Amino acid sequence: MNHIEKLQEYARLIVRTGANVQKKQYVVLSCGVENVSFGRMVVEEAYKAGAKDVIVFWNDVKTSRTRFDYAAMEVLEDIPEWRAESKNYYAREKAAFIAVTGSDPEAYLGVDSEKLKVSSRASDEAFKTYYKMMMNSEIQWCVAAVPEAKWALKVFPELSEEAALENLWDAIFASVRIGREDAVKAWARHNTFLNEKCRMLNEQHFEKLHYKNSLGTDFTIGLQKDHIWEGGGEFTPEQVYFFANMPTEEIFTTPDCNLAEGTLVAAMPLSHQGNLIENFSITFHKGKVSDFKAEKGYDILKMIIEMDEGSDRLGEVALVPYDSPISNTGILFYETLFDENAACHFALGECYPTTVKGGGNMSREALQKVGANQSMTHVDFMIGTKDLEIIGSTKDGREICVFKNGNWA
Amino acid sequence: MNHIEKLQEYARLIVRTGANVQKKQYVVLSCGVENVSFGRMVVEEAYKAGAKDVIVFWNDVKTSRTRFDYAAMEVLEDIPEWRAESKNYYAREKAAFIAVTGSDPEAYLGVDSEKLKVSSRASDEAFKTYYKMMMNSEIQWCVAAVPEAKWALKVFPELSEEAALENLWDAIFASVRIGREDAVKAWARHNTFLNEKCRMLNEQHFEKLHYKNSLGTDFTIGLQKDHIWEGGGEFTPEQVYFFANMPTEEIFTTPDCNLAEGTLVAAMPLSHQGNLIENFSITFHKGKVSDFKAEKGYDILKMIIEMDEGSDRLGEVALVPYDSPISNTGILFYETLFDENAACHFALGECYPTTVKGGGNMSREALQKVGANQSMTHVDFMIGTKDLEIIGSTKDGREICVFKNGNWA
Repeated sequence: MNHIEKLQEYARLIVRTGANVQKKQYVVLSCGVENVSFGRMVVEEAYKAGAKDVIVFWNDVKTSRTRFDYAAMEVLEDIPEWRAESKNYYAREKAAFIAVTGSDPEAYLGVDSEKLKVSSRASDEAFKTYYKMMMNSEIQWCVAAVPEAKWALKVFPELSEEAALENLWDAIFASVRIGREDAVKAWARHNTFLNEKCRMLNEQHFEKLHYKNSLGTDFTIGLQKDHIWEGGGEFTPEQVYFFANMPTEEIFTTPDCNLAEGTLVAAMPLSHQGNLIENFSITFHKGKVSDFKAEKGYDILKMIIEMDEGSDRLGEVALVPYDSPISNTGILFYETLFDENAACHFALGECYPTTVKGGGNMSREALQKVGANQSMTHVDFMIGTKDLEIIGSTKDGREICVFKNGNWA
Repeated sequence: MNHIEKLQEYARLIVRTGANVQKKQYVVLSCGVENVSFGRMVVEEAYKAGAKDVIVFWNDVKTSRTRFDYAAMEVLEDIPEWRAESKNYYAREKAAFIAVTGSDPEAYLGVDSEKLKVSSRASDEAFKTYYKMMMNSEIQWCVAAVPEAKWALKVFPELSEEAALENLWDAIFASVRIGREDAVKAWARHNTFLNEKCRMLNEQHFEKLHYKNSLGTDFTIGLQKDHIWEGGGEFTPEQVYFFANMPTEEIFTTPDCNLAEGTLVAAMPLSHQGNLIENFSITFHKGKVSDFKAEKGYDILKMIIEMDEGSDRLGEVALVPYDSPISNTGILFYETLFDENAACHFALGECYPTTVKGGGNMSREALQKVGANQSMTHVDFMIGTKDLEIIGSTKDGREICVFKNGNWA
């Protein structure tokens, strides 16, 4: 397979397996202007899959940066109705949403964190119909990444731009199982493995998990009493099977947002909205953040934690073996889509309601009442290391080793 | 001035002189993805000029072409409310609109003309608030062009892509008066010249103009009885002076849409919505198209003429000397923005109400009643040649030579 063939296979995989575009369905594609040629492939694949219409939002992170530099706070705060509808409308129409990410991980370095917060809050509010349906798996969505020069050079600073891009493409293709065999089949097999892990964990009905490693993590998280472990693909209410992330290596569920004690130490930097947060830790008491530290990007971490009422509690607990294919590349991607699939992680903010029994049909208030966290945001951070140990406790007091030396026990 | 300096001067000229962006004003920029780096310059200039917010719509003609190939008629017909509002909202907010054009003149070659018609009609209807305010000079708007490879190679087919792009840049810079002296001053002087020509024509109060040349044009157009000749910049109701087109060499007014007799023979191809119409002529009787011919692009011409009730009558008559700076480059641009400023032309469809005394405050019905044509469309076509003669007739029966040998008499 040459590079162009791999690109086409990737576009096809995103459309057919990732978003699983159905005949006569709207498709909404967000894609960076740097990646226009790949975006065009996705558009054509979507039409070939029978899409009724493909709505493309080309975006440019450099222009967005200029906007942050010049526009006033009240401008960033104000998202007009038409823009909110540009996504909410298609969510209500049950479109399939595809996002091609991949841009400079430090595009917003130095932007006033108050501006980022205001803008982020405004987006959360304006697009809440779309976000809610996404978090609830009511619509198909798929996020996949394509390298861009600045990102490639951040990952491989010692290489030339060309070589860095080539290496990053190789790493991405390996992560999404493109190139060796039929990618659709490889994904089906991988999905079976993830589903099997879910089944095993669901049988245990753990009450809580205790995390410990040499980096300083010593932490207990309670699981929501009706939690379900999910991983791999998932179904919409119309029984369309999709993969929200490509790659995906995680098994995840909803914690009890009132039961978190101790300290989580980040195992890798977190790239958030064009900013890097490095060497950080977060301490919890009774489910809530009680303290946090960061050597770099403290303001950004503060912004994440203080975004709204639920942003200082956990909404997701995810298990990924240290020996995952992505982790084994040995590459730090500076991109959550990859890094979260290389290490055990948690997310501050909103839970995935589908990982609570009957959660898809529960109101926000009902979910909150049973400890399934509610927030406008959802931010993953990675804590898995090669010596991570996780012990699960069941209702009847049994203790079972879930992870040992960073991998499934 | 090196190339980058010229680009920056061009971006500044578009923002400051063309759209004349005011402090705290919204700016809406449409720009092709190929021209992202120039688009970024315009965005930054707009903020520097004090723009409140710059809304950017990146577009990709290749993706649009794919859509025409795959999407069904009823999809092309349907423009959702959010998309209509994405421009109408900012028109109502009195934004300044900047369009950076320049893409493959044959991007839509071979697309079913019925699809183009349906899509074009849907746009006209959806964006009518925006279009009406634009045609009425109620908002500032400016269209300027930036070369893209396919376009450059159409203009200079004998050159390499790099050389073609360089030559097209040179031609554009020359046309918009960049590079030799201070561009803003050069534009002010040029504007004075155009205003002087308008004054002279307005003093004559011509009833009709007769056109004749060796190409076969033999045509009489009646002018609207309260017509005003305009050229160069114009004022919004708030007295903001702007240039709708860069370059601009034309003096134009509103004809009487019931008085057109004879045949107009095109002097150059017309590039319309990614299609070329070549070697064509249009014959009028009592103001209305009675016949038309085209060696290439007949279906597209038919589509233009049959778009709606007013699309088979003339809405604009424009005078441009054969010896205009653009014409003197000897280049056929395959882009109306340039070609219309190189030759006398007419437009089928909507008139510019500001070129009728009091027209800016008249209803559509009132304008139609006094012969100022109303239509959803406005399509220019060029008929000026080096031997064009135009004789004007006044109310009192005097005949005055306006153009001789293609130039001002």
